[in-house]
Amino acid sequence: MEGKRPVVVIVGAGFGGLAATTALAGEPVDIVLVDQRNHHLFQPLLYQVATAWLSPADIAAPIRGIFSTRKNVSVVLGSVVGADPARKTVSIDYGGRRGELPYDFLVLATGAGHDYFGNDAWEAFAPGLKTVEDALSIRERLLMAFEMAEMLTDPAERDAKLTIVIVGGGATGVEMAGSIAELARAALVRDFRRIDPRHARVFLIEAGPRVLPAFPEKLSAAAKASLEGLGVTVRTDTRVTGCDAGGVMLGDERIAAATVIWAAGVKASGAAAWLGAKADRAGRVEVAPDFGVPGCAGVFAIGDTATLTDSAGRRIPGVAPAAKQAGHYVGRVIRAALRGESAPPPFRYRDPGNMATIGRRAGIADFGWISLRGPIAWWLWGIVHIYFLIDFRSRITVSINWLWSFLTYKRGARLITRTGR
Amino acid sequence: MEGKRPVVVIVGAGFGGLAATTALAGEPVDIVLVDQRNHHLFQPLLYQVATAWLSPADIAAPIRGIFSTRKNVSVVLGSVVGADPARKTVSIDYGGRRGELPYDFLVLATGAGHDYFGNDAWEAFAPGLKTVEDALSIRERLLMAFEMAEMLTDPAERDAKLTIVIVGGGATGVEMAGSIAELARAALVRDFRRIDPRHARVFLIEAGPRVLPAFPEKLSAAAKASLEGLGVTVRTDTRVTGCDAGGVMLGDERIAAATVIWAAGVKASGAAAWLGAKADRAGRVEVAPDFGVPGCAGVFAIGDTATLTDSAGRRIPGVAPAAKQAGHYVGRVIRAALRGESAPPPFRYRDPGNMATIGRRAGIADFGWISLRGPIAWWLWGIVHIYFLIDFRSRITVSINWLWSFLTYKRGARLITRTGR
Repeated sequence: MEGKRPVVVIVGAGFGGLAATTALAGEPVDIVLVDQRNHHLFQPLLYQVATAWLSPADIAAPIRGIFSTRKNVSVVLGSVVGADPARKTVSIDYGGRRGELPYDFLVLATGAGHDYFGNDAWEAFAPGLKTVEDALSIRERLLMAFEMAEMLTDPAERDAKLTIVIVGGGATGVEMAGSIAELARAALVRDFRRIDPRHARVFLIEAGPRVLPAFPEKLSAAAKASLEGLGVTVRTDTRVTGCDAGGVMLGDERIAAATVIWAAGVKASGAAAWLGAKADRAGRVEVAPDFGVPGCAGVFAIGDTATLTDSAGRRIPGVAPAAKQAGHYVGRVIRAALRGESAPPPFRYRDPGNMATIGRRAGIADFGWISLRGPIAWWLWGIVHIYFLIDFRSRITVSINWLWSFLTYKRGARLITRTGR
Repeated sequence: MEGKRPVVVIVGAGFGGLAATTALAGEPVDIVLVDQRNHHLFQPLLYQVATAWLSPADIAAPIRGIFSTRKNVSVVLGSVVGADPARKTVSIDYGGRRGELPYDFLVLATGAGHDYFGNDAWEAFAPGLKTVEDALSIRERLLMAFEMAEMLTDPAERDAKLTIVIVGGGATGVEMAGSIAELARAALVRDFRRIDPRHARVFLIEAGPRVLPAFPEKLSAAAKASLEGLGVTVRTDTRVTGCDAGGVMLGDERIAAATVIWAAGVKASGAAAWLGAKADRAGRVEVAPDFGVPGCAGVFAIGDTATLTDSAGRRIPGVAPAAKQAGHYVGRVIRAALRGESAPPPFRYRDPGNMATIGRRAGIADFGWISLRGPIAWWLWGIVHIYFLIDFRSRITVSINWLWSFLTYKRGARLITRTGR
């Protein structure tokens, strides 16, 4: 009677969607996992693709491959364009065609994009970093800027090519700034004849009073000092007020820059709009304590798509461990409902700690009871990230690329491939 | 007196251009190496990028990195758009701007593209395989065809998605056909729920009487048998007479196919036109025995850009070892001219033999005095290709990807990333 099994549609194969799928894959249900991409992406290392350390395939795994032995999991490559909670269906677009998927349970784990705070036109000049394409596009811009600087004779033009502005001092912005500064100061240093890549200027712009606001102040200060040691100019309490093809405006000040990267603000995907659900300013669905979407029976939202304060009174942060835990929890909620068992105890986020790296040797780590900085934090960061990579092949290729870069200062993926922008 | 050193401009950082640069890098000359890309590409393995075994960075190395310690080698990322042999300059386009490079010696190693035999409109439907972008575009088409087939309900549409046509039975076509057949029969076999990827049909179309015409007939027959063992339909003495978005025409017969790949015919780049030099039908410059271009003092053409019968009366083939040997030879010719020494003895092509693989285990190898087939030829092929990869990192990452695919039947680089077509 396979046809009568309950159907669980899970939208998004990020950390949350994968955890929910895994939690339910052993149950007598049919799971349909929908994603716009054919691969799961290990986003915490995406900045290393953008800065030519790693290849996309090192941190991306085909979704079908992850669940190939789970015959009750089918994968759909498509975009959700709407949902009808009354009829219990979602509409998807696949290759320009429309289809409808009926569900008994629906898990929305569609993640978030960047928030340009009402200035969406800036996106063309200051791309964010969410997808493999974003990373390749930033890699192309960065490397092309150095190539053009080598050819140009006008000093102002050349300086603009050698100026990189990163907007947003969270983990992505800090790690990106450190990696770009090191690219210029170490990886490229012997490769040009007319310019000195060490003269490249890297600005990190943060609207708040300090970088890495999720960390203790002491570690924020250590990260800032490490960045400055790599030659990054860190500007806190500074807002970007304009952005065009030639650079950015910071109030009255203009920075002429060929490369601007947006790492500020988070805007949830359209899930709230599909459902007509209540959302916060960032577009995150305000979910019930079990991640259920109020008014939509059988529908859950997790990860960056949702906002929730857990049973310990802590707002669940928009980070990978939280998405994984929520996915696993929702899997348990659905399993209990299917089995007619009582619901699991209220969700409580277990914070595994926070880490960030600055360049090839410095790192910071905060576990609440202890905080670390310097090379030990860097090594810990590396080990943890390799451990969490999705498969054995990725672990090996990432390790080798890191080892090679560590020993040679070179970057293995320094390719300019036209992304068709 | 560095400013007065002779200038050697080398156009193209393929096998020929790199060999010429290396041969001259120790001399008191200034070398300008111009390429449209920032990377040297190990083209013999490009079909493995197109079929998701390898990542682009595994077989591509930044040109600047190769010569970073050679201070007399400067690299220009740009396209040559013309040459003036009378004034001894070449015109280049870099990032939309124009520049002129003066030279004392000019080496044109600009390679070749595919020949659509007067039907250039077919290129949009049947891409060739020359660049990283080509490979990623073919990879996207192939993988998307399986994804769409999984979603479609109309049997004719679904069958067309699962049909792949490869035009041209040379080494690229044969290796591509074998790799695609194995992708469908092994790598993808457990990953779909509605289609069986083993039902994919792969056609290899060759206009001549047999595949791999450069090999002895016995080995051509072995290759054909291996391909058929993998389920490839080999059609010799067959010409493609039409090509559109829906498939190909073979005379009166139509094959509906979502993926058509062009691996037939070679057309040299525009070097002959820039120089006003005499060229053969494929556009190759008819060079003198020392690869000099008649009528253009100090100008040489090598590799796929040139056609020449060597001192042993053999036409030099358009393969990597021939390009390397010619590049090295031209380096010696220029060196002798600079030193006022007598020219080196006439060029004679040393044929290292021919190899091809069909899928994961079969191979053929021809060394004149001995020919091999089966697993031993496959292993030999693998070892030789790893040996000739440009750097240590590539050797390691290619070896690991191969080992992983060999053990698991999976393909590590199965990503669909939009190339912006």
